[in-house]
Amino acid sequence: MIAHIVSTGDEVLLGDLVDTNASFLCTALKEMGIGVQKIIAIGDDVDVIVSTIGDISLQADICLVTGGLGPTKDDLTSFACSKAADDRLVLHKDALESMRLYFLKRGLRLEKRHEKQAILPSGSKILTNHNGTAPGFYITINKCLFVFMPGVPSEMKMMFETEVKKVLAETFNLSNEILIERLTVFGLPESKVGFLLNDFETNFPEMRLGFRAGFPVIEVKIVVYDTLHNEKKSQSDLGKAKQWVIERLGENIVSPQGLSMAQEVGRLLVQQKKTLAVAEACTGGLISNMMSDVAGCSEYFKFGAAACSDYAKITILNVQEETISEYGAVHEKTALEMAQGVRHKADTDFGVATCGIASPGEGIEGKQVGTVCIGLAGPSVLEAKTYRFAFADRHLNKKMFAVTALDLLRNHLAKQS
Amino acid sequence: MIAHIVSTGDEVLLGDLVDTNASFLCTALKEMGIGVQKIIAIGDDVDVIVSTIGDISLQADICLVTGGLGPTKDDLTSFACSKAADDRLVLHKDALESMRLYFLKRGLRLEKRHEKQAILPSGSKILTNHNGTAPGFYITINKCLFVFMPGVPSEMKMMFETEVKKVLAETFNLSNEILIERLTVFGLPESKVGFLLNDFETNFPEMRLGFRAGFPVIEVKIVVYDTLHNEKKSQSDLGKAKQWVIERLGENIVSPQGLSMAQEVGRLLVQQKKTLAVAEACTGGLISNMMSDVAGCSEYFKFGAAACSDYAKITILNVQEETISEYGAVHEKTALEMAQGVRHKADTDFGVATCGIASPGEGIEGKQVGTVCIGLAGPSVLEAKTYRFAFADRHLNKKMFAVTALDLLRNHLAKQS
Repeated sequence: MIAHIVSTGDEVLLGDLVDTNASFLCTALKEMGIGVQKIIAIGDDVDVIVSTIGDISLQADICLVTGGLGPTKDDLTSFACSKAADDRLVLHKDALESMRLYFLKRGLRLEKRHEKQAILPSGSKILTNHNGTAPGFYITINKCLFVFMPGVPSEMKMMFETEVKKVLAETFNLSNEILIERLTVFGLPESKVGFLLNDFETNFPEMRLGFRAGFPVIEVKIVVYDTLHNEKKSQSDLGKAKQWVIERLGENIVSPQGLSMAQEVGRLLVQQKKTLAVAEACTGGLISNMMSDVAGCSEYFKFGAAACSDYAKITILNVQEETISEYGAVHEKTALEMAQGVRHKADTDFGVATCGIASPGEGIEGKQVGTVCIGLAGPSVLEAKTYRFAFADRHLNKKMFAVTALDLLRNHLAKQS
Repeated sequence: MIAHIVSTGDEVLLGDLVDTNASFLCTALKEMGIGVQKIIAIGDDVDVIVSTIGDISLQADICLVTGGLGPTKDDLTSFACSKAADDRLVLHKDALESMRLYFLKRGLRLEKRHEKQAILPSGSKILTNHNGTAPGFYITINKCLFVFMPGVPSEMKMMFETEVKKVLAETFNLSNEILIERLTVFGLPESKVGFLLNDFETNFPEMRLGFRAGFPVIEVKIVVYDTLHNEKKSQSDLGKAKQWVIERLGENIVSPQGLSMAQEVGRLLVQQKKTLAVAEACTGGLISNMMSDVAGCSEYFKFGAAACSDYAKITILNVQEETISEYGAVHEKTALEMAQGVRHKADTDFGVATCGIASPGEGIEGKQVGTVCIGLAGPSVLEAKTYRFAFADRHLNKKMFAVTALDLLRNHLAKQS
């Protein structure tokens, strides 16, 4: 089965927008067992849209098109589709009704000027838009099923999940029972993860493995198609595959549930009824920001100090002046005192601290860019470690330092539970 | 002139990677006055690459292709190009020499196994790769100039800037003297910015205006082509256009030099020899993280406190217990005391503080999600303001709150200078 994806709209061609819709649809189709052969982005130009649809109608079996369904004059998709399909445009009753209901729910009335969005090729069937006004539609042209969706990502995604999946499953007789497990991994480059898992498909030929790198954490995804419609068996197979992956990657598994590093640390803290404060020199607030990105964090994340100056380290975190003058601002001893200091100040169970060199120009004698010292203080732990990374980029170093610090705490917590 | 862009590589079609190369190239071509008609992404499949090149060779004048130039067996671009051009592959002397020099600079030797990357169509000319091993090349097929570049963004961008621009300018007789001004804007939706500037091109017909939204800040770009090769005149025209934009957008201009909010606040602090500390409740470290993303920030950014608990607000930032019990954790009075407290603790000139509600579930009686109180304390300022935004998303609210807080300080500093 050959699938193509078409994104329409001048924004993408002008470089003002990166096309994330296509990436979402590729992943979603892959999970249904459908491979994409080509992605095409074109502007709001009727002739180009018509000829693109015409070409694809002879080459592909499925084509998902996004964009150009709105009310303004540069929304040309429906008109172009009718030309390519050699079909006439009609005021589509079902589309109008679907729009009327959308407005009704919001206490609004459908006005005449909205009607353009319900003018569709007569041979098309409509797809409800739960997150916006313009309905989608689908129609077969030559050998290809064309599905037209809005370009706004939230509208498109909702329409794909609730409407399009069903249409594709029915038309192509696909099993749309898909079971997925996600695991997050840290501390290995993607190539190493791939290498460690490279005989996965030999062991589990009925499953697929996917990776998504979100530096510096990697998400490993295991997908199984429940073709036998025996969810219990599929679930148990998936469990075995997951166990196999966990054994291969060991301590590098952050979360077998696919949680982010901050979510997993939060989960462990809640489970163990513990609280956390952090003191950050080189990461400058990034760890705090990551922890506070998780809703409900105030239950366990109590305080973060971005202590960029020695003055703040000494007066607010109670680091000994002599420690800094004797060992320097980037040292395990300093990291340890920062961790103890912030733990004490905020009266939490754990304190985590970072000091290091994130970018050139912050050079401290004898210390290389990419060096970080991490301190961890808690009820039964008091340790500091030094790591050295090789990034020249400030943002990459900050991220790597922050996730490494949280990983040290995560490993400690995991051993307690 | 019709330009197409082709990205090759299975990663994009599998949804594992969002294609940012195409977006970069669209912007870069637009700045040269070349519009892109179509972007195509295809996998590592020889037949598809050959037929895609063949089709484009009859439709477009320029085609930029990225990816598939590496040493592994799924790097098929050169082979596919030779098939489409009906040309033979040769071990290309210039390409080999360019690779030898690349290795030499790094004290390495070119090995036999690297040679595949120098096997190119005999009619092609090479493009030096300054950031990697695989050279690029260009060749005319039918009516179209094809330019092949690596898929690694850092290699591709460097090759485009240093090599490809020249080739395009010479081949198509373009002026490649382009002058650009960038301005950053905050506090207006993109549609409003577009509306306020909508007669720009009537006033400055020889210039182009571009927008790039990086929530919640918008970058406005003015581009002028120095077709007369009179840089002084072009520069003065550009200055007039910039002044026109500044007058239209007024206080919403963050930086007429295109600096980010944190960079501009840093610049003003350095200029006025002032220092800053921040206290964050609802933004949880995001402001600190933004400030510390700027290299050299330790000169003026001294301390950040992510005070998520009332305990930390009271004991570390010296907020009065009665203030919180009487007015609540989200109140202008609390924000003000936090700003004063952190300023005093860190001994800085300015203190900025945030308290608010970033996501549902943090509900505090009578306070809506999206509400934030911002406090500002400094040598001649002591004020607090309440803002209300309508985002349902925690991350959007955090970003909006953080940038709004820095904007309050920026406006104050701008009035002093």
